[in-house]
Amino acid sequence: MSEFTPTVRTKVQRKPDRGTYDRELIYNILDEAFVCQIGFVVDAVPYVVPTNYVRVGDKLFLHGSTAGRLMRTLASGAPFCLSVTLLDGIVLSPTATGHSVNYRSVVVMGKAEQITDPQAKLAAMRDFVEYVIRGRWAQVRPPSDQELRGTMVLAVPLVEVSAKVRTGFAVDDDEEYAGGAWTGVIPFKWSAQTPVLDPRGNQAAQMPANVANYSRPQ
Amino acid sequence: MSEFTPTVRTKVQRKPDRGTYDRELIYNILDEAFVCQIGFVVDAVPYVVPTNYVRVGDKLFLHGSTAGRLMRTLASGAPFCLSVTLLDGIVLSPTATGHSVNYRSVVVMGKAEQITDPQAKLAAMRDFVEYVIRGRWAQVRPPSDQELRGTMVLAVPLVEVSAKVRTGFAVDDDEEYAGGAWTGVIPFKWSAQTPVLDPRGNQAAQMPANVANYSRPQ
Repeated sequence: MSEFTPTVRTKVQRKPDRGTYDRELIYNILDEAFVCQIGFVVDAVPYVVPTNYVRVGDKLFLHGSTAGRLMRTLASGAPFCLSVTLLDGIVLSPTATGHSVNYRSVVVMGKAEQITDPQAKLAAMRDFVEYVIRGRWAQVRPPSDQELRGTMVLAVPLVEVSAKVRTGFAVDDDEEYAGGAWTGVIPFKWSAQTPVLDPRGNQAAQMPANVANYSRPQ
Repeated sequence: MSEFTPTVRTKVQRKPDRGTYDRELIYNILDEAFVCQIGFVVDAVPYVVPTNYVRVGDKLFLHGSTAGRLMRTLASGAPFCLSVTLLDGIVLSPTATGHSVNYRSVVVMGKAEQITDPQAKLAAMRDFVEYVIRGRWAQVRPPSDQELRGTMVLAVPLVEVSAKVRTGFAVDDDEEYAGGAWTGVIPFKWSAQTPVLDPRGNQAAQMPANVANYSRPQ
């Protein structure tokens, strides 16, 4: 199973036992989350902006309006840090400072490259829609030339990448458990609820299976 | 109802109709999430690190090991950007580019101040535990002096703050709906699952109500 090579920027420093560079594990986290936070710097001030991405093989695509600051900044070649975090649970310990959270997080450092070829942009747009919900591209109107021109697509090579994962229960010393408090984990899950039909939509259309049975990753 | 005053750094530029500075709405988002992403700059490189926070009135507290880069950087007075995002749904549109997500996100810009007074640190630690799960402080061993010394607590005044919120269905033109695709929203929810008892914990302890009925905000 292949691993990313840690760099000075992605090597996990704090609690290194939680660090992992395993490619398959990292791809699974990215594919489940599909919402990330991107940090970048403008005039020495850090900004963090949430956005969507799609992973295709060993790269991510980002997209957004050509007018947006995030896209313009990243397209200029500015360095960025992309962060994804899935909260998996709350860890209840017998001690105040022993409380923790279970999570899976990924960090991607790098620079983005703009995709300008219209066919490549269209393919990336298809990847976006299919990453959010498989089978959807065939069910909707594809982008017009004007819509494509107004959308910026950036490619982010997955090279400088690391993850941190915490699982399991509290790690306090055995004698701390003598207090008798209930200890354990409250698991958390991000999950799809019952779909809601658009009042302007086709009221006669049967809900397709990809909507009715939605789960991550797609 | 009071509002934050937008600054050049927090004024919502893209899709300003989604921007809000409403204090009560922003506090509700912060209180539901309790996991944030903090962007900061070291040697001109942006980093984004996930962490927990607690909101107490008009400020946030952050905490972490005194050895961590995030805490040390913020304690030095470096500017940061704190971002919180709750994904509320996937918006299925009749057009490829009309697809979107419903979300609530908050951005806090600023500088942090270190809390050094031991009593104030202890009070903040209590706030942390109670913010994660109400009633827990009384059930566990409080921090020792050594644990307190190893923990850095930072206060972040909530001054430069804004939010973006998207709700509802697709906003395509009416004629786009003629295609007949199923359109609507798949709501998403972050929710607590059945708690799991720690094998080292008190197997006779009854699960307390604050664990059994956990929901956000606390």
